[in-house]
Amino acid sequence: MRRWNGWGDENNGMELPPGGVGFLHERVGKAKALADASLESVLARTPPSRLPAHPLITTDAEARVRHARGQSLPDWLAMRSGDFQYFPDGVAFPESSEDVRELLDFCLERDIVVIPYGGGTSVAGHINPFDSDMPILTMDMGRMNSLLELDEESQLATFGAGTPGPHLEAQLRARGYTLGHFPQSFELSTVGGWVASRSSGQQSLRYGRIEQLFAGGRVETPRGTLYIPTFPASSAGPDIREIILGSEGRMGVLTEVKVRVTPLAEKEDFYVIVFPSWTQAKTAARELVQGKTQLSMLRVSNAVETETQLALAGHPRQIEWLERYLKWRGASEGKCMMTVGVTGSADQCRAAKRQFNALIKQHRGVNTGTLLGRKWAQKRFLMPYLREALWRDGYVVDTLETATDWDNVDHLLNKVEANLRAGLEPEGERVHVFTHLSHFYGQGCSIYTTYVFKSGVTYEETLARWRRMKTSTSDIIVNNRGTISHQHGVGKDHAPYLPVEKGELGMCAIAALCREFDPQQLMNPGTLIASVEPPQATVKKSVKRGDAWTT
Amino acid sequence: MRRWNGWGDENNGMELPPGGVGFLHERVGKAKALADASLESVLARTPPSRLPAHPLITTDAEARVRHARGQSLPDWLAMRSGDFQYFPDGVAFPESSEDVRELLDFCLERDIVVIPYGGGTSVAGHINPFDSDMPILTMDMGRMNSLLELDEESQLATFGAGTPGPHLEAQLRARGYTLGHFPQSFELSTVGGWVASRSSGQQSLRYGRIEQLFAGGRVETPRGTLYIPTFPASSAGPDIREIILGSEGRMGVLTEVKVRVTPLAEKEDFYVIVFPSWTQAKTAARELVQGKTQLSMLRVSNAVETETQLALAGHPRQIEWLERYLKWRGASEGKCMMTVGVTGSADQCRAAKRQFNALIKQHRGVNTGTLLGRKWAQKRFLMPYLREALWRDGYVVDTLETATDWDNVDHLLNKVEANLRAGLEPEGERVHVFTHLSHFYGQGCSIYTTYVFKSGVTYEETLARWRRMKTSTSDIIVNNRGTISHQHGVGKDHAPYLPVEKGELGMCAIAALCREFDPQQLMNPGTLIASVEPPQATVKKSVKRGDAWTT
Repeated sequence: MRRWNGWGDENNGMELPPGGVGFLHERVGKAKALADASLESVLARTPPSRLPAHPLITTDAEARVRHARGQSLPDWLAMRSGDFQYFPDGVAFPESSEDVRELLDFCLERDIVVIPYGGGTSVAGHINPFDSDMPILTMDMGRMNSLLELDEESQLATFGAGTPGPHLEAQLRARGYTLGHFPQSFELSTVGGWVASRSSGQQSLRYGRIEQLFAGGRVETPRGTLYIPTFPASSAGPDIREIILGSEGRMGVLTEVKVRVTPLAEKEDFYVIVFPSWTQAKTAARELVQGKTQLSMLRVSNAVETETQLALAGHPRQIEWLERYLKWRGASEGKCMMTVGVTGSADQCRAAKRQFNALIKQHRGVNTGTLLGRKWAQKRFLMPYLREALWRDGYVVDTLETATDWDNVDHLLNKVEANLRAGLEPEGERVHVFTHLSHFYGQGCSIYTTYVFKSGVTYEETLARWRRMKTSTSDIIVNNRGTISHQHGVGKDHAPYLPVEKGELGMCAIAALCREFDPQQLMNPGTLIASVEPPQATVKKSVKRGDAWTT
Repeated sequence: MRRWNGWGDENNGMELPPGGVGFLHERVGKAKALADASLESVLARTPPSRLPAHPLITTDAEARVRHARGQSLPDWLAMRSGDFQYFPDGVAFPESSEDVRELLDFCLERDIVVIPYGGGTSVAGHINPFDSDMPILTMDMGRMNSLLELDEESQLATFGAGTPGPHLEAQLRARGYTLGHFPQSFELSTVGGWVASRSSGQQSLRYGRIEQLFAGGRVETPRGTLYIPTFPASSAGPDIREIILGSEGRMGVLTEVKVRVTPLAEKEDFYVIVFPSWTQAKTAARELVQGKTQLSMLRVSNAVETETQLALAGHPRQIEWLERYLKWRGASEGKCMMTVGVTGSADQCRAAKRQFNALIKQHRGVNTGTLLGRKWAQKRFLMPYLREALWRDGYVVDTLETATDWDNVDHLLNKVEANLRAGLEPEGERVHVFTHLSHFYGQGCSIYTTYVFKSGVTYEETLARWRRMKTSTSDIIVNNRGTISHQHGVGKDHAPYLPVEKGELGMCAIAALCREFDPQQLMNPGTLIASVEPPQATVKKSVKRGDAWTT
């Protein structure tokens, strides 16, 4: 069964290797775990539901608790402490677009707030209920989880929006296809959630981001049903898909998703290359992607992440031999790991391997082969379980991510890391910070930073530590040419930073779309943008006629 | 100097080869050219300008005539007959974003309609003035034509929005880069026009459509300046770039465009392959693109287009030898030509060639080498001059284009061709119709159909012939899962068909954006959508509060 207060299935887990604990002691000091609340204590504290009865809605306390929080660090602390603050008043489990339509109409007539819910894996507060005078209904799409249609000639598959990653891939694999969308949250996140939050998968170099994979579908909006037909491409005006991508439930509920699929590849390998320095690793990665080498995945860890990964790898003898070999080849202190995926026909993989080997040689990279890459691939979706293991030892882990143009990567990365590393200096605490680049484009890449620190003496202190670091680093990101999110979306946590990125008129455009689809403003309020009210004082020109947004 | 009543430069032109004329006689009959009006007669008929004086605006009659029409067939007939109907009241030639801002403010204060003008190459009526009580200003962006900035690390270039194709490529080539965006209109069209109309170039397989190339920039809107910052990718809400892409001047004037550029490739070749049949050629193309073979260009002509191209090729002896060779290899009656471009490093080109040769062999394709491909590359931007040559012989040529999913390609193509071929049957005229597929995606491809017919006895009759075919075929396209445009945009000519494609709510979303950016509705009215007024009767749910779009 799924954990009510953490990541994944109760039967799955991860242990820190003994060397790993020692490594953290050395980096941030000895820690002491905070006590977890019990499910029973939380259930006892759920307030009565304010929802009128409806056959598709349950107001069962456990369902409400299990849908009250996502997977952000504040969510984690709330679930562990039992201090949830807010709960949905009920949870619906629609089984069809018609069910969703009926539920929406029910809510619109009664002024009930609707929060669409995919896998509940948001790390930015997308699905959190809030202080509201109106009742809140969470709409869990989990029962709409089937492959509805597969057009093998056009390579288009239609899924229920609540289909989670493993189930989606299993249904496709049975027919010889893959979507190839593998975010870290793959085990639990859903195709509808991927679209609504503009997600990106680990092999986006081959398969594209969800923007490239989402071909159309069906959205139940407060104004009626929006069908987005499929075209391979079109120049006919602004693209409606791009309005729904990243709409985060503000414009309606995605019920059916059409995605572009690919036949399963003949061959796939992941290589680990080690470079003597950060600059060499980063430059090699940039040149690989700018040279359009046909890779499926690319990731570059900085020196601290490389060191941390090797320390936590759990097979110290092998790692010792590897380190000796690398030292002999010129990569010791400050060395950086790159993981390269090649996927495709045998000939494509051979060509890609030939091309990347030629390029990494120019930057003194050492190809260690596929052994470490295979281990990475095996464990690629287990990383979220690491938070559980660290928590038991008294450590808190969170990640921050952004993307920026190549000319700004080092500048932004250094600012983010420096701010986090010094984040708890006032209280004499150390923070262990490391980073990788993991999604690559000709223009730039994503920056994904992990930070580990000791939990405070209380939950409140722990949350305050986190908030200080999160807030100041988010400020640094948006004010230094970084996007507030490359792959996690905006939610409620990033909403205050969005105006810096979109600008005043950009925010007006998004607000206008929200008002258009959801005139009553009942869809997931507070997510994506704080307010959709037309701004009054910000208009450059006075409006003389056709002032369409006067409320 | 640029032709005032046709395509391109007066010193450039094209002649039909003698065999070509005979071929058309045989297919559609002997024709007689209509007489052209003189520039003087048109100048004499321009009404007085209604614009107040402004130092950046000229009301010179020739400037107004030269900006009154694009390159659609109705535009062509208007320019040839001299019956222009409407003219802009003046033309402005801004040299900076500040000039554009000043002009916009001038127009907003005085209720002057603004038509942004790039290269004037629209084939869908984007830049045509219309019957209006308000004066109309055309804003020609042609003086904003410089490379403003080149970031070689992030491979981003900033151009003035009025930079035309050859000038843009020359400025980049001098620095070792290319944008790689080569629409048929390349000689005259501009980077701002490409973005505003969601253009696609012949080598989009390698470089992407303009959607993938447009990274950000500056838009002067009636509500103020919209800056779109560059990010390699972002999951932070709906993408503002995607709102401006395809906005066709309805939301403002693009003044600076940031595009993603690529270093000039080491190697480039175009091969011509001939297949015994349409099905074999089409299937090979689909499998090449679905197999992610690294090509830069792909094009498949159907049997009539293949036959027509060979007849009009102008070197009959060589073609005769080629036909004999192909017959010996099994490709005679019904054979179809494919053009394949490979671009990249030497190793990438070798790998691509190896992969496509292996695949075409499975479909009995005959690779004729690079000779015909070189000829195609040399003449690739001269095709628009062909209309001039045909016109002098009494023939009218136009094209129609769409895109659809693979499972629907043959169905739609056959419907479009059959409708055009029978288009003039009531008056006993024949129409010569042929098609190629020219932009390929895993999901489907574009369909580009050319049709040639004899001009009528009068201009009115000729226009009526065209309109009947255009209208009925556009209906067929949007009602048979085709987009109303894959690469030409909507303009005024396609606007009536857009609601079928976008749906009622999709149209509401686009209208809301237009109202948001342009509350006075002075920006290019009638283009893209017929009306941006909020629909009254189409709302599914009655609006109870926050009804933001009540006028």
